[in-house]
Amino acid sequence: MRFTSILAVAATAVITVTALQYSAPATADAFADAEDAVKYRQSAFSLIRENFGHMAGMVRGEIEFDAESFQKRAEALKHLSYIPFDGFSGAGHGVTENSDALPSIWENWGDFSEKSEAFNKAAHELATASQSGDLRSIRPKFMATARTCQQCHEGYRAD
Amino acid sequence: MRFTSILAVAATAVITVTALQYSAPATADAFADAEDAVKYRQSAFSLIRENFGHMAGMVRGEIEFDAESFQKRAEALKHLSYIPFDGFSGAGHGVTENSDALPSIWENWGDFSEKSEAFNKAAHELATASQSGDLRSIRPKFMATARTCQQCHEGYRAD
Repeated sequence: MRFTSILAVAATAVITVTALQYSAPATADAFADAEDAVKYRQSAFSLIRENFGHMAGMVRGEIEFDAESFQKRAEALKHLSYIPFDGFSGAGHGVTENSDALPSIWENWGDFSEKSEAFNKAAHELATASQSGDLRSIRPKFMATARTCQQCHEGYRAD
Repeated sequence: MRFTSILAVAATAVITVTALQYSAPATADAFADAEDAVKYRQSAFSLIRENFGHMAGMVRGEIEFDAESFQKRAEALKHLSYIPFDGFSGAGHGVTENSDALPSIWENWGDFSEKSEAFNKAAHELATASQSGDLRSIRPKFMATARTCQQCHEGYRAD
């Protein structure tokens, strides 16, 4: 039954791609529109915040430290650290409407990009440190990651 | 000025973590509540769909193929392929309210997990293929990724 089903799916792969629900943007390197780009970056940040908040709760001792859970969250943060920044280019370039983004982002694009890379790097180091399962090794890497958030929010985010 | 600012941020790192806006969940391996978990997985899937849709548009020739843009999207998809599945465990376990998730997910958790891993693997291979910049090498990897989506949606998603 399952095997047959997989074969059927494989045979209809072309149809599959057509059938999947989405709206393709009109141009090559862009979101469908500014609203779409803003939504993209905001969704990405909300996922980052979810994972970051969970880890912060453990670092601050508000919720019990659980090495496996922390590692899972750090791993997710590592992957998510790449995501939001695409929403600031293409159709999202210069868009501050319904957004906390400040125009200074595009006036200082090089600095903004460097700060996003610092976040990537810190999130990677945090994920590596989380494998130790030792909060004493993890805490400084978590704090370093928090600093990269703060250093970018200062001057580039409205609140 | 910037240097001073960085020093100030570094000095107030503990305050920084306290000051960041988020709500920490009460337990170690959980979202704050079911609604939060559902929102998490839905946001992740919306980011996946955005990237997938953009690539599909190029594969189908609806938008002009742009190797750099495709690679960027494939790279994002690779990272995002890990994200939604956490929202099906913890507080998201068994939750089908305001969701397209079917109860069969938790009745067949092993199979569901295997399918999520197949998606991860296919997305990785697509990202690697996208580095070639050659649509002929990319297309089969894109189709293989689309199949992993479809194979999981069939039976585990309401629509």
